[in-house]
Amino acid sequence: MNEIEVPPDGRVAVFRAVGEPLTVEHYPLPQLVGTEVLVKVRCSTICGSDLHSYSGSRHSPMPCVLGHEMVGIIVAIGPDGAFDFRRRPLQLGDRITWSMVWSCGQCFYCQQGIRSKCEKLMKFGHEELTANRVFIGGMAEYCQLPEGTSIFQVPDNVPDVVASPSNCATATVAATIRYAGPLKDKSVIIHGAGMLGQTACAMASLGGAAEIIVLEPNLRRREQTMKFGATVAVDSGQSLDTIRSLVLERTCGRGADVSIELSGYPEAIELGLGLLRFGGTMVLAGSTFPTRAVQLPAEQVVRRLLQIVGVYNYNPEDLEAGLEFLSKAQGRFPFAELVGKSFSLSEINSAFTFAREQRPPRVAVFPWSQ
Amino acid sequence: MNEIEVPPDGRVAVFRAVGEPLTVEHYPLPQLVGTEVLVKVRCSTICGSDLHSYSGSRHSPMPCVLGHEMVGIIVAIGPDGAFDFRRRPLQLGDRITWSMVWSCGQCFYCQQGIRSKCEKLMKFGHEELTANRVFIGGMAEYCQLPEGTSIFQVPDNVPDVVASPSNCATATVAATIRYAGPLKDKSVIIHGAGMLGQTACAMASLGGAAEIIVLEPNLRRREQTMKFGATVAVDSGQSLDTIRSLVLERTCGRGADVSIELSGYPEAIELGLGLLRFGGTMVLAGSTFPTRAVQLPAEQVVRRLLQIVGVYNYNPEDLEAGLEFLSKAQGRFPFAELVGKSFSLSEINSAFTFAREQRPPRVAVFPWSQ
Repeated sequence: MNEIEVPPDGRVAVFRAVGEPLTVEHYPLPQLVGTEVLVKVRCSTICGSDLHSYSGSRHSPMPCVLGHEMVGIIVAIGPDGAFDFRRRPLQLGDRITWSMVWSCGQCFYCQQGIRSKCEKLMKFGHEELTANRVFIGGMAEYCQLPEGTSIFQVPDNVPDVVASPSNCATATVAATIRYAGPLKDKSVIIHGAGMLGQTACAMASLGGAAEIIVLEPNLRRREQTMKFGATVAVDSGQSLDTIRSLVLERTCGRGADVSIELSGYPEAIELGLGLLRFGGTMVLAGSTFPTRAVQLPAEQVVRRLLQIVGVYNYNPEDLEAGLEFLSKAQGRFPFAELVGKSFSLSEINSAFTFAREQRPPRVAVFPWSQ
Repeated sequence: MNEIEVPPDGRVAVFRAVGEPLTVEHYPLPQLVGTEVLVKVRCSTICGSDLHSYSGSRHSPMPCVLGHEMVGIIVAIGPDGAFDFRRRPLQLGDRITWSMVWSCGQCFYCQQGIRSKCEKLMKFGHEELTANRVFIGGMAEYCQLPEGTSIFQVPDNVPDVVASPSNCATATVAATIRYAGPLKDKSVIIHGAGMLGQTACAMASLGGAAEIIVLEPNLRRREQTMKFGATVAVDSGQSLDTIRSLVLERTCGRGADVSIELSGYPEAIELGLGLLRFGGTMVLAGSTFPTRAVQLPAEQVVRRLLQIVGVYNYNPEDLEAGLEFLSKAQGRFPFAELVGKSFSLSEINSAFTFAREQRPPRVAVFPWSQ
């Protein structure tokens, strides 16, 4: 095994039960085989789904190591070498991130281009901790990447706190926009201005969208979204008529070409469908939690030729596109501002409490800070 | 004006009020200008939407001439000649049909490829009868085609009763399948086995679909659909579990790739969404009348990456594809059987009564038969 500075063991924050604090525990580092890679985690960010798991509103295997958004440095490589997604060799010291979804690339769904439904799927930060599989989540000093992990080098100009959310938030938004189709000269509505919404805004802006209309109830987020490329930020708590007039005014009286739904609320979906032009497309990516059913007017969908598309997770190519986007976006959009505060691994419970109570788009954990 | 055998006037069946019989009236034939065409109608078929207009369950301008599905012979051509959709010259005596939707080809929606939302739209059989515009529906001896009508020659091997529904039923199904994407080797569910359902079945069959599963409550229609290429016809009145087991059995346990909804019932849409595989597509074309809202589980749409697409009417290219399909389908699928009975123009009220009471897929009117 080819390695640098690797001690015999490392620390992980273990999630054992809802309502109990995470416990920081020591485990021996694994012996790598094949093309496995060991990463020293430089930064890990707390995603909304980590908070859902932590609070029990989403089922999670237990015990497990939470955290799937992360960036790190390669500190050990298996006997057969290491390679990125494009089969280029990787070296010790390379700064990388990787698809949070491990997929085989061979099964029916991988062949259909839906890697997030791989029949052999494994997800970092979502797997049960066992004796042989410990370093599989972001809230840890190290992460072990199994053979076949889709790895990407992080562009030099993208800082750790910006790169860390790329393998969840940024890549999911890239997939969402892939399903929406090219946005050049289009009018786009974005529902929700959290981490994903701000990212979608900036990506639509770099993609040349003519109008980027953000609907969001929170004033601070609406102000923030203007720095991420929105052409207007609208209080989604206003009356339907007010919102509708404003959208029609900015879309030649027709309605929006594309609607990107990232809030997950049925009210937003119902509102958004009424704001589309004939032949418009609504991409749903926020509905990852249970809600009441959306009241869908099928006659309107037909007579207005609407398209509704669900997106969940992403393909490796979307992460690649997301990293390229973040590199281009540096200096143009203040992504680092989306990380509200940072904590060390020993402060992990304070980090979750802060994230849950203050709800900044992201909270960072630096496992190696004291 | 270049013409053959054209008398000074012609008969039209006028719809003046819901609940009153249609009246057969004489009007002078128009003087053609530019590239206008006068057609002697050989056959006109009664579509479901004609029945909705007739019964008042759908708004229609009055007075008007109902009927938009038709086929006829060119008997007069304007001073500037006549041309088909591909700008090939047309001759007196040519047997033609044409897009029921007249579209300009220039406006925003035409440029977006959604000709059915043309800003200058005109629809045969749906316009108010005025002094200058009389021969604009199928229930008449003649039909006047304005400049810019998308005209197609009917292939010689397609009989009149089969060609007549092509510019509504067949072309709409061709558009529906265009939105569904290539069906080769796919598993397809078709909801509803009326005129559109049987056509979709046959089109999916010629398109190489691996499984064509028809869901339909009516036994006679289920039997008929087996002659139109269905691999299995399922009673949609059965329990969800029974239907689901059957679909899974025929789709490698995954669910269907594509679902084509032609019934318009919310129950069918809700059922169909649950029968799709991850990444499956449901095309809605039947919901052209008001119903209760569909209960859409947004979380399922997202987690299962479903696509829902509404289709209304069609583009001229879809009618072209529909006519090619009907030509290839001759001798293979019994399309002529879908026309339950035929009537003359003077029997027009009997024709509507028969269509409404017996509900065969189509009823034909031969305006020139005695």
